[in-house]
Amino acid sequence: MQIKSLGEFGLISRIARIAAAADPLVVKAIGDDAAVVSLGRGRCLLMTTDLLKEGIHFKTAFSSPFLLGKKCLSVNLSDIAAMGGEPTYYVVSLAAPPETPYGFVRDLYRGMAAQARRFGASLLGGDTTASQDGLVVSITLLGKARQAQVLYRHGARPGELVYVTGTLGDSALGLALLHGGRAGPHNRLVRRHLDPQPRLAAGQVLARTHAASAMMDISDGLAGDLRHIMEQSGVGARIFLDRLPLSAAYRTYCPACAGNFYLPALGGGEDYELLFTAPAEKEKTVRLISKRLGLPMTCIGRITGKRPGLTLIGSDGKPARLPEAGFRHF
Amino acid sequence: MQIKSLGEFGLISRIARIAAAADPLVVKAIGDDAAVVSLGRGRCLLMTTDLLKEGIHFKTAFSSPFLLGKKCLSVNLSDIAAMGGEPTYYVVSLAAPPETPYGFVRDLYRGMAAQARRFGASLLGGDTTASQDGLVVSITLLGKARQAQVLYRHGARPGELVYVTGTLGDSALGLALLHGGRAGPHNRLVRRHLDPQPRLAAGQVLARTHAASAMMDISDGLAGDLRHIMEQSGVGARIFLDRLPLSAAYRTYCPACAGNFYLPALGGGEDYELLFTAPAEKEKTVRLISKRLGLPMTCIGRITGKRPGLTLIGSDGKPARLPEAGFRHF
Repeated sequence: MQIKSLGEFGLISRIARIAAAADPLVVKAIGDDAAVVSLGRGRCLLMTTDLLKEGIHFKTAFSSPFLLGKKCLSVNLSDIAAMGGEPTYYVVSLAAPPETPYGFVRDLYRGMAAQARRFGASLLGGDTTASQDGLVVSITLLGKARQAQVLYRHGARPGELVYVTGTLGDSALGLALLHGGRAGPHNRLVRRHLDPQPRLAAGQVLARTHAASAMMDISDGLAGDLRHIMEQSGVGARIFLDRLPLSAAYRTYCPACAGNFYLPALGGGEDYELLFTAPAEKEKTVRLISKRLGLPMTCIGRITGKRPGLTLIGSDGKPARLPEAGFRHF
Repeated sequence: MQIKSLGEFGLISRIARIAAAADPLVVKAIGDDAAVVSLGRGRCLLMTTDLLKEGIHFKTAFSSPFLLGKKCLSVNLSDIAAMGGEPTYYVVSLAAPPETPYGFVRDLYRGMAAQARRFGASLLGGDTTASQDGLVVSITLLGKARQAQVLYRHGARPGELVYVTGTLGDSALGLALLHGGRAGPHNRLVRRHLDPQPRLAAGQVLARTHAASAMMDISDGLAGDLRHIMEQSGVGARIFLDRLPLSAAYRTYCPACAGNFYLPALGGGEDYELLFTAPAEKEKTVRLISKRLGLPMTCIGRITGKRPGLTLIGSDGKPARLPEAGFRHF
């Protein structure tokens, strides 16, 4: 059996069984945006890691090295945001061809350092090595949080509201524009793809105020990521397509793209927005947080108990089908 | 300017300047075997990371996936050992071609998990991704230590003795045998290459007893690694070639290999033994520790103050030259 037939999540669940942590201080190991370890006195350590590979996760033709470095750290920062934590320290391993210009590597680390400073993280070290075939950037980021405030994927309860921050699908459309050679780096959609904003302040406030009950970041696309919350919480969800927060640029560009109008928002990925659930009585709190941060937090549906699985409701009020295939190819 | 003209250490020192940590809790960031962060109450967090790439660091033809996984963790465990710390938690990022057999990945993680259990570390999570071109295994390992006991590279003082644990050069000779197709996996030298033993107990006891003043692990070869201690401590060193601890297998095999008899021990790399300095009055303590652990700790020379640089003394008592080139090619 080849690993491609297991898929990423099938592989991860098997790895989790092979190397399950028996340590009683481990609150959460594999399966959430970051691992959680108790440090005592109500504090905990968060740990997350991402490996980005040229040709799979990024193309150097699409991005400046500064923005690329910034994004490599941002995707890790987004995982800490999704737990409601604060980033602290990170290490970076870089594999690069020996012919790589020093200026490229310098700007890559400058991009990481700029984003780290903005959010209070410090570089602790790393590894550098030669690569025969393109760049690999592997970052591990630590964070901290109060243990009682950490938000997991498993906290959603029937009847709760489903929220997302910001707008969805811009990054996927930006990537499509880049692939089509139809937009420069200053296009708003392209910018959302190349320079995602980790929602640290939002994650921390939602955790501190206990407004949210479950949270994760949207990296693989809303529909796929919501399934993780559903599975880990043992619930279903009903999402209203006409409530999905779409940017003006999305509405302008997307009608021109082939396929379903909602597909980039549902399945596009790399939004790095927060997806969270909240009890109905927290609606006002969420509205206040959204206003104070100047960040839209849109209720897009509801957690259901008795009917498991994800139900999409079209603008006609009837269940709509999510086209399974397609987006990656358009 | 290409990064190959800077060399690994030139590149690392530039990166350190770009992203220097301003955090007052950071005791040591880039430049030692692991980073050290104060946790308060005399405790500290250690953090190290290594990225291993197929074709650069390993060949799957030489090793079983179990031993490969074990070694990937061992090289990180060795960094924690070199600080005198205890390993705690690790994350693993794996990039693998989609056609990789699941059994290979399973055994890779089983090897890591077996070594982790032996030394008390727990897997917290990781990342898995597709690769177009061979495996990448990136591990970040955390550890803990009492801050007053941590051993750095910068602690060596003139007059102190220079020690190494175990024997040197076996791994390099084992690799040469593998490249020459002249030995199976059960050959003792090959085993030293494929399955290095991180010296955690030795590192911890040397730290706890304050017997050692500076310490690091030997990953790039004794001569190169000793230079890091010399530079960071602002001292020189005199090493006696006929005191280098060489295994019987080394003595049997090495005369047959081209080049200098001592070269694999001085410049071979991947020994993962500990290199440490100790004041002369700790000689008896070191001898007792060595005996109790059943691990040779051999005094191979002395730290010098006034004469900086590394001086090798041959068996005739006269300075010998270290052949700069060669080992990688033989």
